[in-house]
Amino acid sequence: MEDSEKFMKEALLEAQKAFDAGEVPIGAVMVRDGEIIARGYNLRNTAKNPLRHAEMDAINKAADIVGDWRLEDCTLYVTVEPCPMCSGAIVQARIPKVVFGTRNSKAGCAGSILNILNEPRFNHQVAVEEGILQEECSELMRLFFRRFRKNGTSLLTEK
Amino acid sequence: MEDSEKFMKEALLEAQKAFDAGEVPIGAVMVRDGEIIARGYNLRNTAKNPLRHAEMDAINKAADIVGDWRLEDCTLYVTVEPCPMCSGAIVQARIPKVVFGTRNSKAGCAGSILNILNEPRFNHQVAVEEGILQEECSELMRLFFRRFRKNGTSLLTEK
Repeated sequence: MEDSEKFMKEALLEAQKAFDAGEVPIGAVMVRDGEIIARGYNLRNTAKNPLRHAEMDAINKAADIVGDWRLEDCTLYVTVEPCPMCSGAIVQARIPKVVFGTRNSKAGCAGSILNILNEPRFNHQVAVEEGILQEECSELMRLFFRRFRKNGTSLLTEK
Repeated sequence: MEDSEKFMKEALLEAQKAFDAGEVPIGAVMVRDGEIIARGYNLRNTAKNPLRHAEMDAINKAADIVGDWRLEDCTLYVTVEPCPMCSGAIVQARIPKVVFGTRNSKAGCAGSILNILNEPRFNHQVAVEEGILQEECSELMRLFFRRFRKNGTSLLTEK
C-alpha cells in the first residue's frame, strides 16, 4: 500500500469519529517525516463553533507540536476537498502539499468552486493530489447525508 | 459619530494591541444588537499559530458567547480586508455583514484578489461596507511595516 493510501486510511478513521458524533464526516491527519503528528475531525455542531473543521483542528495541533505558524515540512491528508476557510488556513500555514479524497462540489476550494490552494497572486501555492481512496471518502459522506435526510433534522446542514 | 466609526475605533484599539506586541496590526470586534460581544487582534507570531488572526479570535469568542456556530445576528468590524482564511470563516459562520477599514492588495478576499465574501456559488453571501476610518487603519499598517523594514527582522512577514 502506498503511503498516500496509508495516511488517507488514517484520515478516514478520523472522519468515522465525526460520523459517529453526528457530524459531517470529514477527517484529516498532518504528516511530517513520514509520521502523523496531528489528527482532526469535524466537530462544528458538537462544539457549536464554525472554526472546528477537521483541517483546522489538525493545523492547530500541528502548530503546537512544530512550535511555529509555518508548517513547511508537513503534508495534510483530508478526506474531502477543503472549504474556503480551511484552504485559506492551509495557505496561511505555508503547507506545501495537500492530499484529499473526494471533491466537494458545493464549497471545495482546491478547484471545484475557487482555487485558493493554487492562486498565483497569493504568496504561497500548494501542491495538490486528489482522488486517494475517493470511493471510501465519498461513500461515508453519502451515508451521512442519507441518514440526515431520513432523520429530517435541520441541524446537520451541509458543510 | 456614526456607529460604524464608533465600532471601527474599537477595532483600531485591538489593532494597536497587535502593533504593541510586534504583530501585523489588525484588530476586529464582533457586534450584536449594538454591543460588542467579542474582540480579537492578530497574534500569529506570538502564539506561533497560523489561525490566530484578529477575525478568527473574534469569531471563536463570539461563537462561545452566542452558543452557536451560526453568528447570524452579528456584524464583524475589522481594520483590514480579510484574508482567504478569515473570509472563509466569515462565510462558514453565516455572518451577514462585514465592515472593514482598508484594502489588502496582497491577500484581501473581499474583492482585492478573490471575492470569497460574495461568491454566488457558496451557500452564504456577506454584505460588505469598506473604507470606514480607512486612513487610520492603513496608517497603522504603514507604520508597522516601516518599523519592520528598519529593524530588518524576517519574523514579521506580511499577513
